[in-house]
Amino acid sequence: MNAQDLIFSLRTALLSKDKEDMAHLTRRCHPADIGAVLSSFTVEQIAQLLSLTPVEERAQLFGYLPKELEADIVPSLDKKALGELFLHMASDERADLFNLLPEEQQGRLLPVLAKAEREDIRKLAAYEEDKVGSVMSSEYALVDAKRTAKEGIAQLRKAAPDTETIYQAYVVDSERRLVGTVSLKDLIMANEDAIIGDFMTRDPVYVKADAPREVASQLIAKYDLIALPVTNGGDKLVGIVTYDDAMDVAAEEATTDFRKVGAVSEIVGNIKDASINLLYRKRVFWLVLLVFGNIFSGAGIAYFEDTIEAYIALVFFLPLLVDSGGNAGSQAATLMVRAMATGEVMIKDWAKMLGKEFIVAGLLGLTMALAVSTLGFWRGGPEIALVVALTMQIVVVVGSVIGMSLPFLLSRFKLDPAAASAPLITSIADACGVIIYFAMATWILDIPVG
Amino acid sequence: MNAQDLIFSLRTALLSKDKEDMAHLTRRCHPADIGAVLSSFTVEQIAQLLSLTPVEERAQLFGYLPKELEADIVPSLDKKALGELFLHMASDERADLFNLLPEEQQGRLLPVLAKAEREDIRKLAAYEEDKVGSVMSSEYALVDAKRTAKEGIAQLRKAAPDTETIYQAYVVDSERRLVGTVSLKDLIMANEDAIIGDFMTRDPVYVKADAPREVASQLIAKYDLIALPVTNGGDKLVGIVTYDDAMDVAAEEATTDFRKVGAVSEIVGNIKDASINLLYRKRVFWLVLLVFGNIFSGAGIAYFEDTIEAYIALVFFLPLLVDSGGNAGSQAATLMVRAMATGEVMIKDWAKMLGKEFIVAGLLGLTMALAVSTLGFWRGGPEIALVVALTMQIVVVVGSVIGMSLPFLLSRFKLDPAAASAPLITSIADACGVIIYFAMATWILDIPVG
Repeated sequence: MNAQDLIFSLRTALLSKDKEDMAHLTRRCHPADIGAVLSSFTVEQIAQLLSLTPVEERAQLFGYLPKELEADIVPSLDKKALGELFLHMASDERADLFNLLPEEQQGRLLPVLAKAEREDIRKLAAYEEDKVGSVMSSEYALVDAKRTAKEGIAQLRKAAPDTETIYQAYVVDSERRLVGTVSLKDLIMANEDAIIGDFMTRDPVYVKADAPREVASQLIAKYDLIALPVTNGGDKLVGIVTYDDAMDVAAEEATTDFRKVGAVSEIVGNIKDASINLLYRKRVFWLVLLVFGNIFSGAGIAYFEDTIEAYIALVFFLPLLVDSGGNAGSQAATLMVRAMATGEVMIKDWAKMLGKEFIVAGLLGLTMALAVSTLGFWRGGPEIALVVALTMQIVVVVGSVIGMSLPFLLSRFKLDPAAASAPLITSIADACGVIIYFAMATWILDIPVG
Repeated sequence: MNAQDLIFSLRTALLSKDKEDMAHLTRRCHPADIGAVLSSFTVEQIAQLLSLTPVEERAQLFGYLPKELEADIVPSLDKKALGELFLHMASDERADLFNLLPEEQQGRLLPVLAKAEREDIRKLAAYEEDKVGSVMSSEYALVDAKRTAKEGIAQLRKAAPDTETIYQAYVVDSERRLVGTVSLKDLIMANEDAIIGDFMTRDPVYVKADAPREVASQLIAKYDLIALPVTNGGDKLVGIVTYDDAMDVAAEEATTDFRKVGAVSEIVGNIKDASINLLYRKRVFWLVLLVFGNIFSGAGIAYFEDTIEAYIALVFFLPLLVDSGGNAGSQAATLMVRAMATGEVMIKDWAKMLGKEFIVAGLLGLTMALAVSTLGFWRGGPEIALVVALTMQIVVVVGSVIGMSLPFLLSRFKLDPAAASAPLITSIADACGVIIYFAMATWILDIPVG
């Protein structure tokens, strides 16, 4: 069913108020597809559609709505519908939603839940948004190391309704410390009577709940895992991160880095639905900051006003030379930022990368110096050609080295390397370029500085 | 075992030449960890370590080596070891490696393989690198719709050694057209005697083999799939893409877009190991191209030389005004490029996004015009303040609209929106900025243009 047909069917369901219509629709369409078109309905309409949806599918469907919308809808649901919804949601999504609610709504919600759920929400909701704990689920399957493979499968079958995945199960000791993992594949492939403790994977890969959340997705990608166990400070198993949540985390982290490199502060959520106010606030900070950065370039130019007046032809080459340093720097910075985000390059690699950058930038500068000296000769004679060529060579190397090193420097001081945005590098390289250019000109053309 | 210990153990295994040492090591360590440290050995040493590794683990270990290294190692393996290796590799990795080999090596390899494997490689290797076909695997599990759940599990168990995953199985008709999917969870949860055809998922989500490969990872992320079936032109099932390959594709696509936004052409593989020659080639193209772009800015400045000579103070504000347009444009471009890559924004959204961008950029420009007019008043009096403020307002709006629209324009002409790099936007915005600035100055300050 395409999006148009789906919207039409949902409209029909709204008019008929028939639960059978929605039940039929949830059988025919994937909740991700229904969730994707729901944003074209009003909050009240969505709440009504949800209350028409069968209980099990309701929570699934709700999970596919944009996070901002979820919090808007909660006040429109009655107490009973809200309790049912929370009961059937995945534990990680439930905790995220809980965090999004205003305090008064949180108070309204807690009494309708069972004690176990209340504690679960409180525990998961306590983790900071950028930590593994905030994306983990507490619904994992445990199996007993002393049981047989056949019994293990039976255990998983029984646990299935309350677990995020039955493809990976965990073995814990009496203190709930993680001692091993076993996959459903292992269980199916093993002899029926084999004892789980004998063939489970000991010392499995795991992550701490307070590690940065991207560590979980890096580990899942590296070891091709379906789920990664999460432990607390005392090495006790507290949850799992599943591959699908890891994919979402990886995509969100890439988006955040992408925006930072474009000098936009972090935006939570979808850009299409972002308000004008939000977009303004996320962009204005860097723009204004960079203006002040550019004042240095302006001051550099002002200092060399006499040089410029004596050789007005020099101004022609100003944007070209100065921008080339910024461009080479932007290239070097984006390469490093991404390489550090994926874990390809670490702080300790700085010296090695610097050596390489010097050679590459030297060659790039040489190529561009040759190109630009022809232009310099044609517009201003041999002396201008020399000034322009030398400046280009130095500017490209300086810009590249700054662009390459800034992400390392930020990382060294525990800041995000992605803050080394293209516009920031451009501004710094510009100021350096102006000084290098006019210093060269003053020196070679032999002009007294005012 | 940490990396240092692992390297030490591998050195020991090299010296002892004892197969038992390597067998022990592969039982204790994850192949991803061994693969990660192997790059600190020479090609000959790696080949030797591989030949000491038990056959099954050898292919696994080989799969975790960097792609470039894989092709280097093949010539060092003898015919028998090579044949064994290929036999145990996953079909998609096998085809990728085959494509990397020089023709003479390909000829050496084909005779040692069975006919079925030869055809499989030829088929998979025929897909272009950026298509779904190039990341799919031909090793999927089929089940019979007429069998019971219990029989289905037995079928999966038997097929397991030759499939990438047993968690998702496929049902095809006599023409091998995809008619349904069933997960191992469905099979385990169903009644033992339930007929698969009665509870399988009909009309499953699928992808065409010639679709761009990022479509597969977008679908897997959207529908939280473990594996996505791939069909050819005739709707026949030809392979599957698994979630772990989809994660790698998503990460690679993000890296490529990231580099493009930094004006670096696509680099295949790891940046740390990239040669100087490669890095030079991938960066020089854009740098030189942008130089020519900047000539427009230079020409603009040259045209207004008289204005500059009359009001040399104007040069102070040149970098500041011109860069602000570029910065606002870079912000708008990176927001759009990423939103288009994740499918958040499509070509049809252009008009809507443009309207919003006008308002946001208008507000940003206003803020910055106010900030900069103070500076203009202080350095040059009320007239300069007016010129600078008006220019800032226009430059920020023009830069933002260009930066926001260019990714759409590129996409409209079937080009990659990520080519709208920050440096490219900066160059275009610079040229516009120079003209706007001096046109404003000439007009307001009433200077005759030479």
